[in-house]
Parts: sequence; structure tokens; C-alpha cells
Amino acid sequence: MGYVVGVDLGGTQIRACLADMKGSILCEARQPTLAKEGLQPVLQRMKETIAQVLHGISGIEVLGIGVGSPGPLDPRTGVVIAPPNLPGWRNVPLREILSQEFGLPVYVNNDANVAALAEQRFGAGRGCSDIVYLTISTGIGGGVISSGQLLLGAHGLAGEPGHTTVEPAGPRCNCGNVGCLEMMAAGPAIARHALDLMQQGQHSTLWAVVQGGMELTAEMVGRAAQEGDDVALQAVARAAHYLGIGVLNLIHIFDPDRVILGGGVSKLGSLLFDPVRAWVREHAMTDLQRETPVVPAALGDQVGLLGAVAWAMDRISSL
Amino acid sequence: MGYVVGVDLGGTQIRACLADMKGSILCEARQPTLAKEGLQPVLQRMKETIAQVLHGISGIEVLGIGVGSPGPLDPRTGVVIAPPNLPGWRNVPLREILSQEFGLPVYVNNDANVAALAEQRFGAGRGCSDIVYLTISTGIGGGVISSGQLLLGAHGLAGEPGHTTVEPAGPRCNCGNVGCLEMMAAGPAIARHALDLMQQGQHSTLWAVVQGGMELTAEMVGRAAQEGDDVALQAVARAAHYLGIGVLNLIHIFDPDRVILGGGVSKLGSLLFDPVRAWVREHAMTDLQRETPVVPAALGDQVGLLGAVAWAMDRISSL
Repeated sequence: MGYVVGVDLGGTQIRACLADMKGSILCEARQPTLAKEGLQPVLQRMKETIAQVLHGISGIEVLGIGVGSPGPLDPRTGVVIAPPNLPGWRNVPLREILSQEFGLPVYVNNDANVAALAEQRFGAGRGCSDIVYLTISTGIGGGVISSGQLLLGAHGLAGEPGHTTVEPAGPRCNCGNVGCLEMMAAGPAIARHALDLMQQGQHSTLWAVVQGGMELTAEMVGRAAQEGDDVALQAVARAAHYLGIGVLNLIHIFDPDRVILGGGVSKLGSLLFDPVRAWVREHAMTDLQRETPVVPAALGDQVGLLGAVAWAMDRISSL
Repeated sequence: MGYVVGVDLGGTQIRACLADMKGSILCEARQPTLAKEGLQPVLQRMKETIAQVLHGISGIEVLGIGVGSPGPLDPRTGVVIAPPNLPGWRNVPLREILSQEFGLPVYVNNDANVAALAEQRFGAGRGCSDIVYLTISTGIGGGVISSGQLLLGAHGLAGEPGHTTVEPAGPRCNCGNVGCLEMMAAGPAIARHALDLMQQGQHSTLWAVVQGGMELTAEMVGRAAQEGDDVALQAVARAAHYLGIGVLNLIHIFDPDRVILGGGVSKLGSLLFDPVRAWVREHAMTDLQRETPVVPAALGDQVGLLGAVAWAMDRISSL
């Protein structure tokens, strides 16, 4: 039986693991990314972390290394183009660098895409050939598996439903587009909705936070919503409304077996899921699609590692 | 060399052809659909039209029959569920009926999906592995080819970008959803936009049509726009605005080599294409995607027939 190394290159941590072809993790290592130090130190720490798991267990055959990295990147060439949260990274041939270092085939893909693959193989999408995965935190990333295949696109840039317009009258997004799902439904949007409502004169327990000069976060709004604060509930409901629109749009485009929602904002639970499910039930085109399950992600903070493992397995088995 | 029969079951006409594996048509036959007569007479005319082309040329090997039919339908089972413009059709096992009649394998798919395949194999998307195709007339249908594969979805219902919300404040669509691309940018929307502007007091050469008691059509508005009528120009621009949003959303989701626009409304030419291309150029996430070509369909009214041929070829070659 062969093994693969999975690497999760995050803005905060670099993690690596050794796993078998069923996704069982044999050993794991991690280091802080310290992204601000720039390209070379981060690459060095990646190599060290990989070496640790590679040499942790002897006498087994390692078939390749899978890497989940912040995008944009080209999964076909393994070149990382210019990730906003990795300063100094521009057109980095990550595949080449790591495969020269370790003498193994390396497979790079973006973090949200490999997360989708992980949920389909090992998580909330097990047994499904068609899934849509969204991860909702400070941004909205995504990945789609259609007929068992991860959607890549002509230049490896497919799977950015977070940057589709769901509100033409909405604000301009950093990406250049207008009223993106991410601008209307991710964490910062929830905080902004709450702030807007308070500035319009509505009372909220969150006002103390703002008056105290602290930055309002989606987590604070979420907590206030759980406690019944009306402004917080409205802010979450507004995000859930747009998320419902985005999810149903993806159902009409992809007709998936299920939609999987992960990321920090998905921890709002039924406050978020119930209105999304209701929107789908009330607005989908066909009975089958009205019933599309919208479910929470299952892999928690292992999703990046397992995604890197799944992507390597996927490439190796397609050889 | 093998041959296939292609069948285009339309609301107005039933067409059939015999083609080789390169998509060259050897002979063709057609009959009016007369859909109002109901299921059995339409099936009978389909069989006759297919028999005509099958027996038109002797001594050649026919490998199968491809059918493009109005949806919704399940391409995996070949069951046509309930097409709005074919009265009396409910869960019709079209594949079974035709394969029993002719003793050949039959491959059924919906008309917009097979049209996408035809444009990719023989038309404006030749040589591309990833295309998004939209046909804009009284509705907006679509089909997507990703990594060379037609997107089907879990129940064969994928590829309905016409029914994604692009205007949350828009009107409810017949499909059950709100502010669908089809409601904002198809032919009837163009006519409705023009009517709204005239009812708000704007002057137009089209007012004579309305006063005369005739129904305003997108074609009339298009003609007036070509002649410089301001209301008509605004109505077309509004549709093009929403079409631009819809097209860019699909570019961010699929990262296609190109986007192909067909159907009657696409004949508006640069009045429609220029603002769509400008929207993409000004709002796409990456340089590569800003440059995504948005091009007119190439196959005209042969697209349905060639689509049915392409779908049969696709299935036969995947066996």
C-alpha cells in the first residue's frame, strides 16, 4: 500500500501529514507560517515540516506530495501566482521547488478546491459524485466536484462562487467585481450589517463594543445573535438571505447531490442554515432540487490537510 | 466509419439527420411538431422523421440515435419529465420508446446542453476544453463543457444559469426563483423594460405599436434600437447589463476558455456583446479572466441537430 504526504500551507500555520490512501493520518507536524518574513523563510519551513513527516516513519513507500495553498494558482503547473496573505509570493513554481527537494511528484491546488475534495472523499460528501462546497469566514472560497471530478477550468481558476454578483446594488469587492456573495455574506459583511443598523439608530448590546473602540467581528455578532440581540439577528439574517441566493444559484447551475458549508461563519448553525434551506425549498425549479441537502462540513480544521492528501491521491490514481 | 442519427425535437419542428462522426450531415428530414395534438401524434411524427433519414441511405452502419429534447429530462435514463412546450408529455421514457422502435442505442439530452456540445465540437468553441454556452431567446438556456465533459449534475438537471438570481429585487420567475437572469435579460424582459420606460413618460417610436394594440416583442425593440430609438437602446442596455453580470458570474465559477452566446436575442450583435464584454473586462478577478472571449454562436439553426449528433457521438465514444 502506498502513502502520500499532505501539506496545508495556511496564512497562520504550515501543517504536513503522512496518510494512507484511505485518508488515515499516520503522523503529523506543524510550524507557524510567519508569512510576513517573506518567501524564502516560508519555503524553508515548508521543507522542514515535510521532511519531519517523511522521515517520521521508515520503510514505507511514499507516492507523492499534495499541497493545498492559498490561490490564485495554476494546479496544472503548480505555480502559485500572487496570494494576498503570503507577502513576497509572486509566480512561485512551488511544485518544481518541492519536487526537486524531495525527488517525489508534487501536486499543488488551491486550499478551497482541495477542501471540497476532502469533504467529498472523507467528510460530509462521502458517497456523492456531485457536491458544491463553500467555506465562509473572512472570505468565501469554494470548490465543486461534478461527476466525481474536481472542477478546474481552462486556467485552473474555476470555483470562485464567492465572487459572483448576488446584489447588483452592492459594494465593490476587492476582487474588482460588484456585490459579490463574499461582500454580502462573509464575516465582515455580518459585522458591517450590524454596524449599519446601529448607525441607523437601532439599539443593540453590541453598541458597547463599538463605543469602546473595538472592531466589531462576525463572531461577536454571532454570539449576540445566539443571545437574542435583535440587531445581531437581523445582520445574520441578511447574510443568510444572500447566502441562500448564492446556494440556490449553484444548485441550478450544478444540480449537486448536496451543498456543504464550512468555515468559521458556518458555526452560526441553524441561524444560518435554516434560512438558506428555506430559500432553497421555496425557490428551486424542481422537486428534486428543492430537497437538495445543505449540510455542515464535517472535517473541521483537518480539512486542509486531508484535502492535500485527497488531491495527491486523485492525481496519482489518474496516472 | 460509423454514422449516427441526430434528432432535434423542437416546439415548432421535428428535425432528423444522418451524420458521420465528424459532424458532416449526409441527409436531413423534418416535419412540423404540432405539439398541441399531444404525446402520441408527436411520437409518431418523430418515428417517421427518424425512419426517413435511416432508410435514406443504405449499406452504412448506424451506431445510435442522439436526441435533443426540451427539458427537464434525465439524460441518464432518457425520461422526459414535463416540458412546458410539449403538452401531454409527462415522464415519457423517450429512450426506451425509440430504441425499441429502431433496435439502436438512443441517447437523450436537453436541447441547450446538446447545443453547448455542438458549439464546442463543431462551432464557436472548437478546440476549447472549457466553454459556457447560453442561448437567449424567450428564455435563457445553457450548457457547460468543463475539461471536455458536458456538465450533467446529480440528476441530469445541471446547466440552468438562466435561473440564477442576478437581481434580488427582481420579479418572480415562472421557475419559482426570484430575479432570474432569464427574467432580467431574455426577450420578454427587453420588451418589458421598453414598455416600462414608455409608461414612465419617455417618448419612443415603439409607442405606436403599443397604441395599436399589438404585443411589443424583443425583435421590435431590437429593430428600434438599431435605428437609434432612445427607449429601445435603454431597454437593450438594461438587459445587457444583467447579461454581463450573469456571464461574469459564470466566468468566475467555471473559468472557461470562452463564453458563447446564441439564440434570437444574440442577433442584437454589438448592442448586446459590447456592454457584456466591457462588464467582464472591468470586473473580472484576474487578467486571464478579463480577457475571456465572449463570442457569438456559430451554428445557427443547425445547432440542435448537430447537438443531438454530438451527444450520441460522445456517449458512443465513451463506451
